[in-house]
Amino acid sequence: MESCVPPGFRFHPTDEELVGYYLKKKVASQKIDLDVIRDIDLYRIEPWDLQERCRIGYEEQSEWYFFSHKDKKYPTGTRTNRATMAGFWKATGRDKAVHDKNKLIGMRKTLVFYKGRAPNGQKTDWIMHEYRLESEENGAPQAS
Amino acid sequence: MESCVPPGFRFHPTDEELVGYYLKKKVASQKIDLDVIRDIDLYRIEPWDLQERCRIGYEEQSEWYFFSHKDKKYPTGTRTNRATMAGFWKATGRDKAVHDKNKLIGMRKTLVFYKGRAPNGQKTDWIMHEYRLESEENGAPQAS
Repeated sequence: MESCVPPGFRFHPTDEELVGYYLKKKVASQKIDLDVIRDIDLYRIEPWDLQERCRIGYEEQSEWYFFSHKDKKYPTGTRTNRATMAGFWKATGRDKAVHDKNKLIGMRKTLVFYKGRAPNGQKTDWIMHEYRLESEENGAPQAS
Repeated sequence: MESCVPPGFRFHPTDEELVGYYLKKKVASQKIDLDVIRDIDLYRIEPWDLQERCRIGYEEQSEWYFFSHKDKKYPTGTRTNRATMAGFWKATGRDKAVHDKNKLIGMRKTLVFYKGRAPNGQKTDWIMHEYRLESEENGAPQAS
Protein backbone atom coordinates (compact mmCIF):
# COMPACT_ATOMS: atom_id res chain seq x y z
CA MET A 1 0.00 0.00 0.00
CA GLU A 2 2.56 2.50 1.17
CA SER A 3 4.60 2.03 -1.96
CA CYS A 4 1.66 2.52 -4.38
CA VAL A 5 -0.10 5.63 -3.22
CA PRO A 6 1.90 8.86 -2.82
CA PRO A 7 2.25 10.49 0.61
CA GLY A 8 -0.71 12.52 1.75
CA PHE A 9 -3.41 10.29 0.29
CA ARG A 10 -5.93 8.69 2.66
CA PHE A 11 -8.59 6.08 1.98
CA HIS A 12 -11.86 7.93 2.57
CA PRO A 13 -14.20 6.32 0.06
CA THR A 14 -17.75 7.51 -0.55
CA ASP A 15 -20.64 5.04 -0.47
CA GLU A 16 -20.78 5.34 -4.23
CA GLU A 17 -17.11 4.37 -4.60
CA LEU A 18 -17.46 1.46 -2.18
CA VAL A 19 -20.43 0.01 -4.03
CA GLY A 20 -19.83 1.12 -7.62
CA TYR A 21 -16.14 0.28 -7.71
CA TYR A 22 -14.97 -1.98 -4.90
CA LEU A 23 -18.01 -4.14 -4.22
CA LYS A 24 -18.99 -4.39 -7.86
CA LYS A 25 -15.54 -5.58 -8.85
CA LYS A 26 -15.36 -7.97 -5.92
CA VAL A 27 -18.69 -9.61 -6.75
CA ALA A 28 -17.61 -9.93 -10.39
CA SER A 29 -14.24 -11.36 -9.27
CA GLN A 30 -12.46 -8.58 -11.12
CA LYS A 31 -9.05 -7.32 -10.14
CA ILE A 32 -9.06 -4.36 -7.76
CA ASP A 33 -6.14 -1.99 -8.34
CA LEU A 34 -5.02 -1.82 -4.78
CA ASP A 35 -5.68 -4.44 -2.17
CA VAL A 36 -6.97 -2.02 0.46
CA ILE A 37 -10.09 -3.96 1.45
CA ARG A 38 -9.34 -7.22 3.20
CA ASP A 39 -11.32 -10.46 3.07
CA ILE A 40 -12.43 -11.60 6.49
CA ASP A 41 -14.97 -13.93 8.02
CA LEU A 42 -17.10 -11.54 10.03
CA TYR A 43 -18.61 -14.32 12.13
CA ARG A 44 -15.24 -15.43 13.37
CA ILE A 45 -13.88 -12.05 14.30
CA GLU A 46 -14.86 -9.60 17.03
CA PRO A 47 -15.15 -5.90 16.15
CA TRP A 48 -12.16 -4.99 18.32
CA ASP A 49 -10.00 -7.44 16.38
CA LEU A 50 -10.86 -5.94 12.98
CA GLN A 51 -8.39 -3.12 13.51
CA GLU A 52 -5.40 -5.42 13.34
CA ARG A 53 -6.68 -7.30 10.28
CA CYS A 54 -7.87 -4.36 8.22
CA ARG A 55 -5.10 -1.87 8.81
CA ILE A 56 -4.12 0.30 5.83
CA GLY A 57 -0.53 1.46 6.00
CA TYR A 58 0.59 3.07 9.23
CA GLU A 59 -2.26 5.47 9.73
CA GLU A 60 -4.32 5.83 12.86
CA GLN A 61 -7.75 4.66 11.69
CA SER A 62 -11.20 4.84 13.20
CA GLU A 63 -12.89 3.01 10.33
CA TRP A 64 -11.97 -0.32 8.77
CA TYR A 65 -13.03 -1.83 5.48
CA PHE A 66 -13.51 -5.47 4.67
CA PHE A 67 -15.31 -7.98 2.49
CA SER A 68 -17.17 -10.84 4.13
CA HIS A 69 -19.57 -13.50 2.87
CA LYS A 70 -23.01 -13.46 4.38
CA ASP A 71 -23.73 -16.44 6.57
CA LYS A 72 -27.17 -18.06 6.66
CA LYS A 73 -28.77 -18.69 10.03
CA TYR A 74 -30.16 -21.97 8.75
CA PRO A 75 -28.88 -23.79 5.65
CA THR A 76 -32.26 -23.63 3.93
CA GLY A 77 -33.42 -20.22 5.11
CA THR A 78 -32.88 -16.65 4.03
CA ARG A 79 -32.24 -15.15 7.46
CA THR A 80 -28.77 -13.86 7.98
CA ASN A 81 -26.69 -14.91 10.94
CA ARG A 82 -24.51 -12.14 12.21
CA ALA A 83 -23.34 -13.58 15.51
CA THR A 84 -19.74 -13.84 16.66
CA MET A 85 -18.36 -15.60 19.73
CA ALA A 86 -18.76 -12.54 21.91
CA GLY A 87 -21.98 -11.05 20.57
CA PHE A 88 -23.99 -10.17 17.49
CA TRP A 89 -24.60 -7.45 14.92
CA LYS A 90 -28.12 -6.07 14.89
CA ALA A 91 -29.60 -3.88 12.18
CA THR A 92 -30.72 -0.40 13.14
CA GLY A 93 -32.67 2.25 11.26
CA ARG A 94 -33.60 2.00 7.61
CA ASP A 95 -31.37 0.91 4.79
CA LYS A 96 -29.99 3.79 2.76
CA ALA A 97 -29.97 3.79 -1.02
CA VAL A 98 -26.61 4.30 -2.75
CA HIS A 99 -26.76 6.09 -6.09
CA ASP A 100 -24.34 6.66 -8.92
CA LYS A 101 -25.65 9.89 -10.39
CA ASN A 102 -29.37 9.13 -10.28
CA LYS A 103 -29.11 5.39 -10.70
CA LEU A 104 -29.59 3.03 -7.78
CA ILE A 105 -26.51 0.84 -7.47
CA GLY A 106 -26.73 -0.52 -3.94
CA MET A 107 -28.00 -0.32 -0.40
CA ARG A 108 -26.32 0.40 2.90
CA LYS A 109 -27.50 -1.27 6.09
CA THR A 110 -26.37 0.03 9.48
CA LEU A 111 -25.75 -2.44 12.29
CA VAL A 112 -24.78 -2.11 15.92
CA PHE A 113 -22.75 -4.66 17.84
CA TYR A 114 -24.24 -6.10 21.04
CA LYS A 115 -22.24 -8.18 23.48
CA GLY A 116 -23.98 -11.34 24.63
CA ARG A 117 -26.79 -13.28 23.02
CA ALA A 118 -30.05 -12.07 21.43
CA PRO A 119 -32.65 -11.09 22.52
CA ASN A 120 -30.55 -9.85 25.40
CA GLY A 121 -27.13 -8.38 24.90
CA GLN A 122 -25.42 -5.16 25.78
CA LYS A 123 -25.23 -2.42 23.16
CA THR A 124 -21.74 -1.20 22.24
CA ASP A 125 -20.35 1.75 20.26
CA TRP A 126 -19.35 -0.47 17.36
CA ILE A 127 -21.17 0.43 14.15
CA MET A 128 -21.01 -1.43 10.86
CA HIS A 129 -22.20 -0.38 7.44
CA GLU A 130 -23.06 -3.35 5.27
CA TYR A 131 -23.24 -2.64 1.55
CA ARG A 132 -24.93 -4.73 -1.07
CA LEU A 133 -25.38 -4.37 -4.82
CA GLU A 134 -28.87 -3.50 -5.92
CA SER A 135 -30.55 -1.97 -8.96
CA GLU A 136 -33.99 -0.63 -9.74
CA GLU A 137 -34.83 -4.01 -11.32
CA ASN A 138 -34.09 -6.10 -8.24
CA GLY A 139 -34.59 -3.44 -5.59
CA ALA A 140 -36.88 -4.13 -2.69
CA PRO A 141 -39.58 -1.46 -2.67
CA GLN A 142 -39.37 -0.77 1.05
CA ALA A 143 -35.72 -0.02 0.79
CA SER A 144 -35.80 2.92 -1.57
CA MET B 1 -4.54 12.31 -11.23
CA GLU B 2 -7.76 10.33 -11.51
CA SER B 3 -6.01 7.60 -13.44
CA CYS B 4 -3.16 7.18 -10.96
CA VAL B 5 -4.79 6.90 -7.57
CA PRO B 6 -7.48 4.27 -7.02
CA PRO B 7 -11.05 5.33 -6.18
CA GLY B 8 -11.64 6.32 -2.59
CA PHE B 9 -8.31 8.02 -1.99
CA ARG B 10 -8.31 11.70 -1.04
CA PHE B 11 -5.40 14.10 -0.71
CA HIS B 12 -5.35 14.99 3.01
CA PRO B 13 -1.65 15.46 3.75
CA THR B 14 -0.28 16.09 7.21
CA ASP B 15 2.09 19.01 7.85
CA GLU B 16 4.87 16.47 8.09
CA GLU B 17 4.08 15.03 4.66
CA LEU B 18 3.78 18.47 3.08
CA VAL B 19 7.17 19.58 4.41
CA GLY B 20 9.11 16.32 4.62
CA TYR B 21 8.04 14.95 1.26
CA TYR B 22 6.48 17.54 -1.06
CA LEU B 23 8.30 20.74 -0.12
CA LYS B 24 11.63 19.01 0.43
CA LYS B 25 11.50 17.40 -3.00
CA LYS B 26 10.35 20.61 -4.64
CA VAL B 27 13.18 22.66 -3.14
CA ALA B 28 15.68 19.99 -4.22
CA SER B 29 14.09 19.91 -7.71
CA GLN B 30 13.40 16.20 -7.32
CA LYS B 31 10.61 14.42 -9.10
CA ILE B 32 7.34 14.21 -7.17
CA ASP B 33 5.41 11.02 -7.89
CA LEU B 34 2.14 12.66 -8.59
CA ASP B 35 1.68 16.22 -9.73
CA VAL B 36 -0.96 17.11 -7.16
CA ILE B 37 0.53 20.41 -6.01
CA ARG B 38 0.48 23.10 -8.66
CA ASP B 39 2.99 25.89 -9.23
CA ILE B 40 1.40 29.29 -9.06
CA ASP B 41 2.43 32.90 -8.58
CA LEU B 42 0.63 33.80 -5.40
CA TYR B 43 1.01 37.55 -6.01
CA ARG B 44 -0.81 37.37 -9.30
CA ILE B 45 -3.74 35.29 -8.14
CA GLU B 46 -6.60 36.08 -5.79
CA PRO B 47 -7.61 33.48 -3.20
CA TRP B 48 -10.98 32.88 -4.87
CA ASP B 49 -9.21 32.02 -8.13
CA LEU B 50 -7.00 29.36 -6.54
CA GLN B 51 -9.81 26.83 -6.62
CA GLU B 52 -9.81 26.61 -10.38
CA ARG B 53 -6.03 26.39 -10.64
CA CYS B 54 -5.37 23.92 -7.87
CA ARG B 55 -8.20 21.48 -8.38
CA ILE B 56 -7.39 17.79 -7.77
CA GLY B 57 -9.60 15.46 -9.76
CA TYR B 58 -13.33 16.07 -9.53
CA GLU B 59 -13.69 16.33 -5.79
CA GLU B 60 -15.38 19.13 -3.94
CA GLN B 61 -12.48 20.75 -2.10
CA SER B 62 -12.25 23.30 0.66
CA GLU B 63 -8.45 23.35 0.74
CA TRP B 64 -6.03 23.89 -2.12
CA TYR B 65 -2.34 23.18 -2.32
CA PHE B 66 0.27 25.05 -4.31
CA PHE B 67 3.92 26.00 -4.58
CA SER B 68 4.83 29.64 -4.97
CA HIS B 69 8.10 31.55 -4.86
CA LYS B 70 8.40 34.17 -2.17
CA ASP B 71 8.50 37.70 -3.48
CA LYS B 72 10.68 40.35 -1.89
CA LYS B 73 9.09 43.69 -1.02
CA TYR B 74 12.27 45.47 -2.08
CA PRO B 75 14.99 43.90 -4.24
CA THR B 76 17.65 44.34 -1.58
CA GLY B 77 15.57 43.65 1.52
CA THR B 78 14.41 40.60 3.39
CA ARG B 79 10.78 41.62 3.88
CA THR B 80 8.27 39.52 2.06
CA ASN B 81 5.65 41.05 -0.18
CA ARG B 82 2.40 39.16 -0.07
CA ALA B 83 0.08 41.58 -1.87
CA THR B 84 -2.18 40.72 -4.77
CA MET B 85 -4.25 43.07 -6.94
CA ALA B 86 -7.25 42.86 -4.63
CA GLY B 87 -5.60 42.68 -1.22
CA PHE B 88 -2.82 41.18 0.85
CA TRP B 89 -1.93 38.20 3.03
CA LYS B 90 -1.10 39.09 6.63
CA ALA B 91 0.54 36.76 9.13
CA THR B 92 -1.42 35.88 12.25
CA GLY B 93 -0.44 34.06 15.42
CA ARG B 94 2.85 32.30 15.94
CA ASP B 95 4.60 30.04 13.48
CA LYS B 96 4.17 26.35 14.26
CA ALA B 97 7.05 23.90 14.19
CA VAL B 98 6.72 20.87 11.92
CA HIS B 99 8.46 17.73 13.15
CA ASP B 100 9.34 14.38 11.61
CA LYS B 101 9.42 12.17 14.69
CA ASN B 102 11.30 14.50 17.03
CA LYS B 103 13.32 16.30 14.41
CA LEU B 104 12.44 19.83 13.32
CA ILE B 105 11.96 19.83 9.54
CA GLY B 106 10.01 22.99 8.89
CA MET B 107 7.75 25.78 10.03
CA ARG B 108 4.16 26.66 9.25
CA LYS B 109 3.03 30.27 9.12
CA THR B 110 -0.68 31.13 9.15
CA LEU B 111 -1.87 34.11 7.12
CA VAL B 112 -5.22 35.78 6.62
CA PHE B 113 -6.30 37.54 3.45
CA TYR B 114 -7.41 41.17 3.68
CA LYS B 115 -9.12 42.99 0.86
CA GLY B 116 -7.72 46.44 0.18
CA ARG B 117 -4.36 47.93 1.05
CA ALA B 118 -2.33 47.76 4.30
CA PRO B 119 -2.55 49.16 6.94
CA ASN B 120 -6.26 49.27 6.16
CA GLY B 121 -8.05 46.41 4.49
CA GLN B 122 -10.99 44.23 5.27
CA LYS B 123 -10.40 40.86 6.85
CA THR B 124 -11.77 37.84 4.96
CA ASP B 125 -12.29 34.14 5.76
CA TRP B 126 -9.40 33.10 3.53
CA ILE B 127 -6.63 31.38 5.47
CA MET B 128 -3.27 30.29 4.11
CA HIS B 129 -0.66 28.05 5.65
CA GLU B 130 2.80 28.83 4.37
CA TYR B 131 5.37 26.10 4.91
CA ARG B 132 9.13 26.46 4.84
CA LEU B 133 11.99 24.06 5.38
CA GLU B 134 13.88 24.53 8.59
CA SER B 135 16.17 22.46 10.79
CA GLU B 136 17.60 22.81 14.28
CA GLU B 137 20.81 24.19 12.71
CA ASN B 138 19.15 27.08 10.89
CA GLY B 139 16.05 27.42 13.02
CA ALA B 140 15.12 30.84 14.35
CA PRO B 141 14.90 30.60 18.15
CA GLN B 142 11.62 32.51 18.43
CA ALA B 143 9.95 30.06 16.14
CA SER B 144 10.28 26.87 18.17
